[in-house]
Amino acid sequence: MPQTIDPAELTARLIRCASVTPEEGGALVLLQEMLEQAGFDCTRVDRGGVSNLFARWGDKGAAKSFGFNGHTDVVPVGNRDDWSVDPFGAEEKDGQLYGRGACDMKSGVAAFVAAAIDFVQATPPEGAVILTITGDEEGPGIDGTAALLDWMDETGERMEMCLVGEPTCPETFGEMIKIGRRGSLNAFVTVTGVQGHAAYPHRANNPIPAMARLVDRLSTHGLDTGTDHFDASTLAVVSMDTGNPATNVIPRQTRATLNIRFNDLHSAESLKEWLWAEAQWVAEEFEVEIDLDVKVSGEAFVTPPGELSAMVARAVEAETGLSPVLSTTGGTSDARFVKTHCPVVEFGLVGQTMHQVDERVEIAQIHRLKSVYTRILESYFT
Amino acid sequence: MPQTIDPAELTARLIRCASVTPEEGGALVLLQEMLEQAGFDCTRVDRGGVSNLFARWGDKGAAKSFGFNGHTDVVPVGNRDDWSVDPFGAEEKDGQLYGRGACDMKSGVAAFVAAAIDFVQATPPEGAVILTITGDEEGPGIDGTAALLDWMDETGERMEMCLVGEPTCPETFGEMIKIGRRGSLNAFVTVTGVQGHAAYPHRANNPIPAMARLVDRLSTHGLDTGTDHFDASTLAVVSMDTGNPATNVIPRQTRATLNIRFNDLHSAESLKEWLWAEAQWVAEEFEVEIDLDVKVSGEAFVTPPGELSAMVARAVEAETGLSPVLSTTGGTSDARFVKTHCPVVEFGLVGQTMHQVDERVEIAQIHRLKSVYTRILESYFT
Repeated sequence: MPQTIDPAELTARLIRCASVTPEEGGALVLLQEMLEQAGFDCTRVDRGGVSNLFARWGDKGAAKSFGFNGHTDVVPVGNRDDWSVDPFGAEEKDGQLYGRGACDMKSGVAAFVAAAIDFVQATPPEGAVILTITGDEEGPGIDGTAALLDWMDETGERMEMCLVGEPTCPETFGEMIKIGRRGSLNAFVTVTGVQGHAAYPHRANNPIPAMARLVDRLSTHGLDTGTDHFDASTLAVVSMDTGNPATNVIPRQTRATLNIRFNDLHSAESLKEWLWAEAQWVAEEFEVEIDLDVKVSGEAFVTPPGELSAMVARAVEAETGLSPVLSTTGGTSDARFVKTHCPVVEFGLVGQTMHQVDERVEIAQIHRLKSVYTRILESYFT
Repeated sequence: MPQTIDPAELTARLIRCASVTPEEGGALVLLQEMLEQAGFDCTRVDRGGVSNLFARWGDKGAAKSFGFNGHTDVVPVGNRDDWSVDPFGAEEKDGQLYGRGACDMKSGVAAFVAAAIDFVQATPPEGAVILTITGDEEGPGIDGTAALLDWMDETGERMEMCLVGEPTCPETFGEMIKIGRRGSLNAFVTVTGVQGHAAYPHRANNPIPAMARLVDRLSTHGLDTGTDHFDASTLAVVSMDTGNPATNVIPRQTRATLNIRFNDLHSAESLKEWLWAEAQWVAEEFEVEIDLDVKVSGEAFVTPPGELSAMVARAVEAETGLSPVLSTTGGTSDARFVKTHCPVVEFGLVGQTMHQVDERVEIAQIHRLKSVYTRILESYFT
């Protein structure tokens, strides 16, 4: 198969586009030009200041259609002086390519774009290859992949299955495929009592002992012990704050914030119900008012091991010799949106320097990632 | 007995001295002049920017020696615009005298100075009448009454018993004598764990559940149920603070502040030992580090009901018809220093407007307070 696109060179060109969310920075324009040249139908699906690119090779509505998803936006560089290189310079040193987005995830996008172009040109498949690339994965995410998928639904575009090219490997390339994610929610707890003088606690009603009891109960409650595809759900109270500087005053109010990462035994709704029941119990016990403000970041989801994960695992094993773990660990990704459209898994590079100063990627790994993606396409269309 | 000093007029003159701690403001100078004119030996015992006045009528080292203690310094006026009168104008309205210190406690000082001068001039007693007046009761208190008593020890001056003229009556003049005070301490608790990502609590060690357990244990522990002269000791956790704005980060450290008001079943030392034992238990249970910083404001003290309190109670009853309660409630006063020198009780006016805007005192009450103090002197020296 002729190799026309060097994915490391494409990564470098993308790094030089300063596409800090929500700036497009020239990254999607560059990709669209390349893809159109290679025969892809491209549509910019821009929404609310966010740029998104849809690209399809092959017929709309084809029975077989394999999709890739990724993003070209990057997080800010932080303190520029802490970098040893230009964050948008794409400098090469000792086999590594440096720059913001080198790892998360311009290399991943470059690898699947390069694989897709080379694949359709060398062996035009029976079906469609679809690329969905957003400029808002690191931001609010509302006008990014979610909006792109809405547009696909409205216009009759579809993927039969999809691979998200985010970094998935903790330390060694090939060791991990992600098949889902835990859900996540934050709860902001406010306990209100009656203010008073510390010397006369019986004339006040201190909200702090009630908060301590609630935090103790929530912290010591085991949510579950894990499921087939998930670790045990976790609850972390991350802050308790009263802000009372006066040692002789019993405060009226105190607050706490907690974060729950939950598996498929729970839903945001079932956890809200549990939190409210606990709060109610403590409120009655201590005769205080307790308010909860729950913000849901995402529900738990999983694409159970099957055709897609097996195909990706075979490609990884063929390329690396490693048998990848099917995992549901880690932070959020746009797979949470894709999962309502079609089966989705994630496979990508080692993600150690994501979001860090001197973010970088091993150049050889970009080439190997392109090979894995090519093997997946070959496998899917054979 | 001839009445030479009008205590309400003297209160007004003292209010016009702007003696906000540590300013002398002319108040002690005025009193010294009056007392010397009446035959008192006066000594200014000034220490570290604080002015104090010692005055004795009669012989140094006399077997019978009755003392009064009070302060002429006042707290700041706060927002001047909130006052309906000049805070240092001593304005009279509807039988009330207005101004900062009207209640706490220029009226009390005026009443005992007036009573003492009239008493020694009308019926020169066998013994000594001693006045100890400080200019730093509202401030740090280090160079005030405590320093004055040190000076008395060094120079061989002594009181057989002492009355502090602070406001002691919650609502009705004559209803309460104070014979002691609860002790008070603040403890600043720091729990240190290991920081980490909220998604991976097993790689971190969250200090918050340990703090919640400690606060729960301390808050629900009954220290005692009270003693003959004291209410039950109280513990109030007044603040819990982490200050972690990131919902995805488990913090390294969290803090809490607590205040204990304790009776004569405890000492600051015994409470420190208990707090450390509780902290140790939780630290081991949760494998965290817990540090305590304990600041002692004062030990519990009491002058058990006896000769002094009986004498003061008789004088109050004769003047008001009320049988005063012997109480140990309320905030701190310089009685905590005097108690190491001699038996001490406190009796004074209704203290409702202490430290408030439009602080004021009923003029008739100042006259009645002088009468009570006169009756006490008569009773003591008869």
